[in-house]
Amino acid sequence: MNFKELTADKTAQIETMLRKYLPVEEGYQKTVLAAMNYSILAGGKRLRPLLMQETYRMLRGTEQTVEPFMAALEMIHTYSLVHDDLPAMDNDEYRRGRKTTHIVYGEAMGVLAGDALLNYAFETALQAYDKTSDPARVTKAMKLLAGRAGIYGMIGGQTADIEAEHQKTDVNEEHLLYIHEHKTGALIQAAMGIGAVLAGADDQTVQDMEQCALSIGVAFQIQDDILDVTSTTEVLGKPVGSDAKNEKLTYVTMKGMEQAAEDVRNYSKQAMDILEKYAGEDRYLLQLVQSLITRQH
Amino acid sequence: MNFKELTADKTAQIETMLRKYLPVEEGYQKTVLAAMNYSILAGGKRLRPLLMQETYRMLRGTEQTVEPFMAALEMIHTYSLVHDDLPAMDNDEYRRGRKTTHIVYGEAMGVLAGDALLNYAFETALQAYDKTSDPARVTKAMKLLAGRAGIYGMIGGQTADIEAEHQKTDVNEEHLLYIHEHKTGALIQAAMGIGAVLAGADDQTVQDMEQCALSIGVAFQIQDDILDVTSTTEVLGKPVGSDAKNEKLTYVTMKGMEQAAEDVRNYSKQAMDILEKYAGEDRYLLQLVQSLITRQH
Repeated sequence: MNFKELTADKTAQIETMLRKYLPVEEGYQKTVLAAMNYSILAGGKRLRPLLMQETYRMLRGTEQTVEPFMAALEMIHTYSLVHDDLPAMDNDEYRRGRKTTHIVYGEAMGVLAGDALLNYAFETALQAYDKTSDPARVTKAMKLLAGRAGIYGMIGGQTADIEAEHQKTDVNEEHLLYIHEHKTGALIQAAMGIGAVLAGADDQTVQDMEQCALSIGVAFQIQDDILDVTSTTEVLGKPVGSDAKNEKLTYVTMKGMEQAAEDVRNYSKQAMDILEKYAGEDRYLLQLVQSLITRQH
Repeated sequence: MNFKELTADKTAQIETMLRKYLPVEEGYQKTVLAAMNYSILAGGKRLRPLLMQETYRMLRGTEQTVEPFMAALEMIHTYSLVHDDLPAMDNDEYRRGRKTTHIVYGEAMGVLAGDALLNYAFETALQAYDKTSDPARVTKAMKLLAGRAGIYGMIGGQTADIEAEHQKTDVNEEHLLYIHEHKTGALIQAAMGIGAVLAGADDQTVQDMEQCALSIGVAFQIQDDILDVTSTTEVLGKPVGSDAKNEKLTYVTMKGMEQAAEDVRNYSKQAMDILEKYAGEDRYLLQLVQSLITRQH
């Protein structure tokens, strides 16, 4: 199989795995369960669980602990989208061509389904304790999961992003980088860091994987800003020029197109250099990271 | 010290302890940190951490693991109030005489502060692993915390409550009991169950504490319904008759005042009978439970 087929295959397997971890829609609370499942099953690239699985595999993990953490991380990513779409936040009625959760189930259920997914993510990850001979590894992974998702991780980035929208001119490069590193980078870090921890990697390796993930996250986000200017709606599959329309400060407006493109190349090289040290003959993760950063949509 | 003084003293100590676990308000994300702290420091009876601590003490717990779990449970309780107050839910502008979180910090921050508190609760509870010689106990407590707070616990109850408001006439006694047991009961169960688990209690004792907590939670909630009919706004400190005004189905409207009062006595007796088996000479927890159930406000 070539890279594209392999990725489709792996993603389909993750899709099947995720379904195993979803709640059965029954009981007096079944509406929130249906809303959770609707949100999770809306598709998506399953990038975070894929990165976690492939980091785990590259570092020769052999237990069954990675599955519940893959599911948990995707639940956290999904809850953040459900709450982001709420009228109080981005007020989006559609995501990936489907109605958003609060449009289908009402706004109260949108709030509760997000809460439920976040809480259930931890319930799900805790199942890993029943699958390990080394509970200390799972504890380390639990701490990474909670830390990267929270106020010093993703939620920190979401908050800084909202603040930036209010301040506009006061936003400096450090602030913008903080947003990119935390809003997008933190869950990528969780993916690769947890993959490494659960595989039993030493501290240096875990640190390398997290550093690699951070570079990927930032490169990914800058590329997003670039594509919003250079791509077309057809290629991108979503409206282009939205940042300019919203007068949103982006990496491109701040540093110019040339420097932005240069920085994507630099961050990418950092990430690839780290991965090269560990990849050996197993080239899949390298290819995956390459494809993420150089994507045209 | 008499019971009242003792309770004031213990509550003040919990208040001090909670502050130790709150984030420092600095960084690009400081608005969400301020909103979290504002929500937590709004006061309240600190009932759940108090119940956890006293269960732990009664069962002779000796480690320092209970503190992070006490803080975590109060964070979970607080996040549920912050989200409950949102316009999409109960749309409350005041709570305990103070403006609610989303009124002070805006609706987006109301959503994020709730998310942040829930996530930080797990980060905080995970600190207990650094304070124990028996990580398996902490894992058991983590599972209880996540389980009782989630879709098979509190969130389940919140959802069933919202469903009941939509259905009104279709709500039967089982449905109403499900709401009481989960919306209020589940976090009381978490409090006493986690207190027992961390103290190293055997399975039967943990089960007894959870059963006791469930009876307390239901008795507490029925008493709430009773007071809404029989009390005055002065005594209760909040408007009475709100259930009738909102045509809300309550335990009293369903079973009549006499049966409701009888049931409070029965649930209370169940709870007290269990506690008597464990209390010995230490009467504080018994008195606390008694005071909760027979409260007039």
